[in-house]
Amino acid sequence: MLNFQSEKLKDEVLLRDPVHGYIHIEDKVIFDILQSKEFQRMRRIKQLGPISYVFPGATHTRFEHNLGVYELTRRICNIFSKNYPSREPDDGLWDDSNRLLVECAGLLHDIGHGPYSHTFEHLFGTNHEKIGQQIITDPHTEINQALRQVSPNFPELVASVIAKTYPNPQVVKMISSQADADRMDYLQRDAYFTGVNYGQFDLSRVLRVIRPYQDGICFTNNGMHAVEDYIVSRYQMYQQVYFHRVGRSMEVILHHLLQRAKVVYKTGTLQVTPSLAKFLEGNWTLDDYLKLDDGVMETNFSLWLNSSDPILADLASRYLFRKPLASIRIDEDTKGLLPKLKDLIKQAGFDPTYYTDTNSAFDEPYDAYKPTGKNANSQIEIMQDDGSLIELSQLSPLVKALNGTFQGDERFFFPKTMLSQSNEPQIFDPLYEQFQRYIKNGALHYLRRPHKK
Amino acid sequence: MLNFQSEKLKDEVLLRDPVHGYIHIEDKVIFDILQSKEFQRMRRIKQLGPISYVFPGATHTRFEHNLGVYELTRRICNIFSKNYPSREPDDGLWDDSNRLLVECAGLLHDIGHGPYSHTFEHLFGTNHEKIGQQIITDPHTEINQALRQVSPNFPELVASVIAKTYPNPQVVKMISSQADADRMDYLQRDAYFTGVNYGQFDLSRVLRVIRPYQDGICFTNNGMHAVEDYIVSRYQMYQQVYFHRVGRSMEVILHHLLQRAKVVYKTGTLQVTPSLAKFLEGNWTLDDYLKLDDGVMETNFSLWLNSSDPILADLASRYLFRKPLASIRIDEDTKGLLPKLKDLIKQAGFDPTYYTDTNSAFDEPYDAYKPTGKNANSQIEIMQDDGSLIELSQLSPLVKALNGTFQGDERFFFPKTMLSQSNEPQIFDPLYEQFQRYIKNGALHYLRRPHKK
Amino acid sequence: MLNFQSEKLKDEVLLRDPVHGYIHIEDKVIFDILQSKEFQRMRRIKQLGPISYVFPGATHTRFEHNLGVYELTRRICNIFSKNYPSREPDDGLWDDSNRLLVECAGLLHDIGHGPYSHTFEHLFGTNHEKIGQQIITDPHTEINQALRQVSPNFPELVASVIAKTYPNPQVVKMISSQADADRMDYLQRDAYFTGVNYGQFDLSRVLRVIRPYQDGICFTNNGMHAVEDYIVSRYQMYQQVYFHRVGRSMEVILHHLLQRAKVVYKTGTLQVTPSLAKFLEGNWTLDDYLKLDDGVMETNFSLWLNSSDPILADLASRYLFRKPLASIRIDEDTKGLLPKLKDLIKQAGFDPTYYTDTNSAFDEPYDAYKPTGKNANSQIEIMQDDGSLIELSQLSPLVKALNGTFQGDERFFFPKTMLSQSNEPQIFDPLYEQFQRYIKNGALHYLRRPHKK
Amino acid sequence: MLNFQSEKLKDEVLLRDPVHGYIHIEDKVIFDILQSKEFQRMRRIKQLGPISYVFPGATHTRFEHNLGVYELTRRICNIFSKNYPSREPDDGLWDDSNRLLVECAGLLHDIGHGPYSHTFEHLFGTNHEKIGQQIITDPHTEINQALRQVSPNFPELVASVIAKTYPNPQVVKMISSQADADRMDYLQRDAYFTGVNYGQFDLSRVLRVIRPYQDGICFTNNGMHAVEDYIVSRYQMYQQVYFHRVGRSMEVILHHLLQRAKVVYKTGTLQVTPSLAKFLEGNWTLDDYLKLDDGVMETNFSLWLNSSDPILADLASRYLFRKPLASIRIDEDTKGLLPKLKDLIKQAGFDPTYYTDTNSAFDEPYDAYKPTGKNANSQIEIMQDDGSLIELSQLSPLVKALNGTFQGDERFFFPKTMLSQSNEPQIFDPLYEQFQRYIKNGALHYLRRPHKK
Repeated sequence: MLNFQSEKLKDEVLLRDPVHGYIHIEDKVIFDILQSKEFQRMRRIKQLGPISYVFPGATHTRFEHNLGVYELTRRICNIFSKNYPSREPDDGLWDDSNRLLVECAGLLHDIGHGPYSHTFEHLFGTNHEKIGQQIITDPHTEINQALRQVSPNFPELVASVIAKTYPNPQVVKMISSQADADRMDYLQRDAYFTGVNYGQFDLSRVLRVIRPYQDGICFTNNGMHAVEDYIVSRYQMYQQVYFHRVGRSMEVILHHLLQRAKVVYKTGTLQVTPSLAKFLEGNWTLDDYLKLDDGVMETNFSLWLNSSDPILADLASRYLFRKPLASIRIDEDTKGLLPKLKDLIKQAGFDPTYYTDTNSAFDEPYDAYKPTGKNANSQIEIMQDDGSLIELSQLSPLVKALNGTFQGDERFFFPKTMLSQSNEPQIFDPLYEQFQRYIKNGALHYLRRPHKK
Repeated sequence: MLNFQSEKLKDEVLLRDPVHGYIHIEDKVIFDILQSKEFQRMRRIKQLGPISYVFPGATHTRFEHNLGVYELTRRICNIFSKNYPSREPDDGLWDDSNRLLVECAGLLHDIGHGPYSHTFEHLFGTNHEKIGQQIITDPHTEINQALRQVSPNFPELVASVIAKTYPNPQVVKMISSQADADRMDYLQRDAYFTGVNYGQFDLSRVLRVIRPYQDGICFTNNGMHAVEDYIVSRYQMYQQVYFHRVGRSMEVILHHLLQRAKVVYKTGTLQVTPSLAKFLEGNWTLDDYLKLDDGVMETNFSLWLNSSDPILADLASRYLFRKPLASIRIDEDTKGLLPKLKDLIKQAGFDPTYYTDTNSAFDEPYDAYKPTGKNANSQIEIMQDDGSLIELSQLSPLVKALNGTFQGDERFFFPKTMLSQSNEPQIFDPLYEQFQRYIKNGALHYLRRPHKK
Repeated sequence: MLNFQSEKLKDEVLLRDPVHGYIHIEDKVIFDILQSKEFQRMRRIKQLGPISYVFPGATHTRFEHNLGVYELTRRICNIFSKNYPSREPDDGLWDDSNRLLVECAGLLHDIGHGPYSHTFEHLFGTNHEKIGQQIITDPHTEINQALRQVSPNFPELVASVIAKTYPNPQVVKMISSQADADRMDYLQRDAYFTGVNYGQFDLSRVLRVIRPYQDGICFTNNGMHAVEDYIVSRYQMYQQVYFHRVGRSMEVILHHLLQRAKVVYKTGTLQVTPSLAKFLEGNWTLDDYLKLDDGVMETNFSLWLNSSDPILADLASRYLFRKPLASIRIDEDTKGLLPKLKDLIKQAGFDPTYYTDTNSAFDEPYDAYKPTGKNANSQIEIMQDDGSLIELSQLSPLVKALNGTFQGDERFFFPKTMLSQSNEPQIFDPLYEQFQRYIKNGALHYLRRPHKK
Repeated sequence: MLNFQSEKLKDEVLLRDPVHGYIHIEDKVIFDILQSKEFQRMRRIKQLGPISYVFPGATHTRFEHNLGVYELTRRICNIFSKNYPSREPDDGLWDDSNRLLVECAGLLHDIGHGPYSHTFEHLFGTNHEKIGQQIITDPHTEINQALRQVSPNFPELVASVIAKTYPNPQVVKMISSQADADRMDYLQRDAYFTGVNYGQFDLSRVLRVIRPYQDGICFTNNGMHAVEDYIVSRYQMYQQVYFHRVGRSMEVILHHLLQRAKVVYKTGTLQVTPSLAKFLEGNWTLDDYLKLDDGVMETNFSLWLNSSDPILADLASRYLFRKPLASIRIDEDTKGLLPKLKDLIKQAGFDPTYYTDTNSAFDEPYDAYKPTGKNANSQIEIMQDDGSLIELSQLSPLVKALNGTFQGDERFFFPKTMLSQSNEPQIFDPLYEQFQRYIKNGALHYLRRPHKK
């Protein structure tokens, strides 16, 4: 019934990609999306934001990641249409008339992201998912115009795939599930650009064992270990890259910097570019949002270096010139000590509102079916020879160990000065010494014996 | 006599680098340079500028490249001090008291670069070499302050190594020669991030065969093929990456965009950030220069999208949203046709001053000694078993073929519209058709028979 | 006290190794061991034996693995002597006078292996550990002569390191522990040659965090995830490569082939090379053992292709020309069905003694301290900032999940013919059909309803 | 007209290959060839023979290379049938009914090789091309039986493709030309297993630009540099791997060993396996040939270690335990000195017939059309936009430099003892000293001043 067709390009366009080799573009609609100004803007938004402060190679952008997800959906469609073509409705196999839809959804799944999305959303009430839907469905965007080549309701269909309301679960889960093209691309890509090889899993093998079934996408029996390895790699990337304490520290600074800018803006003394001003005013449009990127933000931070507000100027300098806060692990038990620590920090001359923070980073590496969870029913299934399905954690001791757990830590951030030491004990600053007595093996702890050390 | 010492860090600092694995930092002076705001600024300047428009992965920055060159000098010093330690003055071997000097020079050799250096220098009369010297020797910079920890004249010595006036040729040539740490790093790095593997050469083998001699740095006999491969890789990278026609096209647009901005600035209607304004005024300081980066430039371009000057707004849009000009190969013989072509382009509604250009890109992949050349005496030497030297092109047929040649091409750039075609020949725009008759196999050519085709 | 010195080579010898880049040889004693006929013989013994029948690239030999282990001990010694040099006895740091000892032990730890060690030992009562000790300590071997250059008792000391009786636990555990140079090399090497990248872990990072302590070797706190990844990779390699059902099937055939050869030998009709004959007679010397390699064994199998004993000839053909047996998973519960299955196999014309087998393959991926275990006290420790140690499974949820478990399966092997099917049901052989009714999803199972299918 | 069809396998068979990722087998005829005993035998013949003595990782076999060539033909057919499908006879595009033919030819192009082919052929008059044709067309081989499934004359057609007499030049040149699947595979594979990365070229890019044309296979215009890089890589591999002086030295020893065995065989005292005996008798059949492999040869060498003929025993030991001869470069000019050198070698106790040799190794890295050459008309063509062809060396300065040249050297091999030195000059053996006076920088040279040194 549905049969989305696009004009084909006369010659396939190939883009070099260090992760997938080549990105293949055969359809005019894909090419036109790429050419749109909303999509080109992604070139100016780093995929990992402040994490590039920890892993200097991680300068890759959302542009490349979106292309990568598109390429993976294209390859999965190739595999499905070759090996599992649907022959009659509801046979649980792949209907390749959905190809263009899923490819566009892959390409556009992150289109609503702006610079430092997480921090920005928190402070300015933006929502990258809603904005993404708007970019796709608003008739004034170049992306919408490109999509309408296929059919008048094609933009809405693409948006529904990303919103997970499209009725075909195979299409939806190729983009959004515990083993989707999105995650497969970002894990490989982030591992490549950070240079950490524990994030790499055997993508070629995962693609070899992926298959459609009635309720979505699963994996064939001989692929259990490939999928297990992917889950473990994902866990490793979270623990070692995404949750890196210094990356989180830079994000804390960023948050406080923008928070302070809101305060200073009200005084009327803030130098700011027009696009960002709209957000500080709380009066922005989609067009303003599309004008933001990492460079615009950093240009503003650079303007703020000369601000008469010393906290703003200092935080801008800390962000631009990479002066992270220090941090220690805390837990429910030791949190009671934080007021005492903040007090010492205040005595040392730092406003705790802007120079301290607590930050939790926990990820659920895998979860089997939880009826009430937000990822309900997205568990990974392994298909047996006889067509029955077994949920992954039933087969893998590693996935079983991670299933339903939350891995990560909670940290308290504070100025590095508090850790100062001196080789001459007599001149060791008593304030700092007092502070440091609460730290052992990188964690906050109660003093057992008051004058220990 | 000289013996540059720096306080050692208590714990070695290791930075993950996808190209070299780890960057090892053992000295406080190196660490302090890294922490300086002048150095951190390099994080915001892409190594390959507009080439990332062609190879999407090429978002790596001058920050990482500078670290990479430092790391290579460090490794070469390790090899030299282990295998070729000088035992008495003038024995032609390596005096490791130069280590810190050459490491700092490696780290800082590119510190004077700003955004889009080549284009910027041409239009605004800046000079990255002079600015680099200034950043190192000006007592107000954080880099200068870091360097002075070693000795009061250490900044000047580092500057002299980069300026090639330092007397020890081994030190100078480790940074600046036909096979220096700079080139070795950028070839490997650019190949990694673009994803083109023809740029990769066997760095581990080159490092195995490099050695000092009286007049600089040479290679041992068993390393001829490793060095030959490096020269060929360099040639390949120039032909396929650095000289890519689309990268050059984006650079042409950038040049015309800034050129037009200078014109519009004079009308007083240009919206511009303070730092860039100083350059348009022709009245800038080092501090203004250090405020520039890719993001600041693009923020300005973004402001110009709304300019009332249609050419400025269009060129800004073409640059930000990647709308390259088309191009064809030209040569001395066919250049005579350019006025005719420009006339057709003008008829099609484009101002040839801003919408056409010619651009030469030629590189001399290798040159043996040329007494009058600017690289005089930097030829690559291979040391024989008996200590005698043979110049590389005498041993390698490939290097001999490249020696002294200039490889590349000259191109004419113009709006893509001129290549428009139609499937309905009768409505094919006669203007475009006329234009296209001058093009054959990607090059400009004279019409042999007027009405051919 | 001890200070093992060897004459240094005039020029370091470098061997290209695809896994570690280069193997560096600086000492004459190492070079002389390499040149010995006992060591060169390792070139003719594949590291993974019949597994090359499953992963065609896995043709690498014990020669390269031994070199790789040597190279890793050399690198670990470099790291230890740079970062953790012992300054006084019993300070728990590294005494580099043990270097040559541990390098020789690394190089020779597997020297006692012959072709298809596991199978061979089972059938002929050889013992590669004892033979290894003999090769090192017997004054007639070239290896012993090379070692004696260092000191008269040096061979015995090397042998004691391999036998784990040498008193310094750092030396012993660099060769034999849950994270030793042996395992690190074979995991990387086997992954490279099989082409499975899930076996790769971040060796450079593991080497960065390894350190000596009083009771052996441990890892620094920031290396927990690197070591965790190594344990997971090891688990993956066991499950997917070392325990591959087809590799085990070829080993089953090999076992039965040699078993049958023993029977036929007694009849006096077996054509056999002199070296193998000694083992069939049960009357072999070290010299006979050193004459065996993969090629000699296969040459014998090739001679047996023409044997008048049909079982011997068939099994030789199956081994040489890769005709594996089929297999299914079994467990304690379903083993009761095996007599029934064997009976059907016998009816189909195969002698169950030679054409069926059960084979268990289980590995304990990690075990924390078990006082009575054979690996007692070899648990992996992570050193905290304050010098205290935490056992790995206390920190890693993945290692905790694997700790003390045995991963693998038990299989029943039988001729593939039993799985024959036909498109024409009426001519489907009832014997085969009956057999196949006991198999579901690759495992043996009881028939619930007698005539189910 | 032709339309070769094979039964498809129910499930595609995938073999892990570290070079190409996976080998995909879809056709029963390909699978049956793989299973044949003639093909399985290739597992026991190393691709690079004695070169594994220089690069220890190079233990890969002809089995894997043949699979690799098959896989490349399969991929090229996929590309051709997708992008360049023939629509009418003689349109110069690809007729995919040739697919199975060219895949089988790729798989079998080297099937006639035995152990140490080059040396063996020279001494025993075998010819691997003729034997290959015989294996394919002799109705008694399992390979012939597999091929006949397709059609009765299919074996002859496959043989004609390998013999280059098949009329379709696209089919022939996919297997045999200057840029064929054979060379592409062995360059990549040999580079992977030796660990030398200068042999790697960008295979994915070469496959992207390859295309059919009327007279064979050429490359599209944008692929010039990819093909240039391939030619350069090939040159590098010849100079550094295939022509390595130590590899050639081991081949010289092998040649003399077999030569001596022929002499000793005539005395009736040689212990030898039945299969090799037939060749020493000069009375062998195809069946005898198929019994030979590396292991059989080495088993014989091992038997000869105990020979009463001292030269045979010594040469066998030198081969098995890697004791290469030394060598120096010679040329037409210096060859006149060889009798003098041989005389000194004879005085030192070595029979020059068995302990010296000269060996030329020269390769023509590329040749444009030479009407009389044996590779006539196999030059590499680059197709321009208008369909015209330009020969590669017209476009590439590197290929032009190599075109028609012969790169390599000629060497004289002799016992290493002749290079002995002593730290005590007075006891330096005058014979050796005299010998060494003729050597300078690794080459033979005339003495200028008789008593120099």
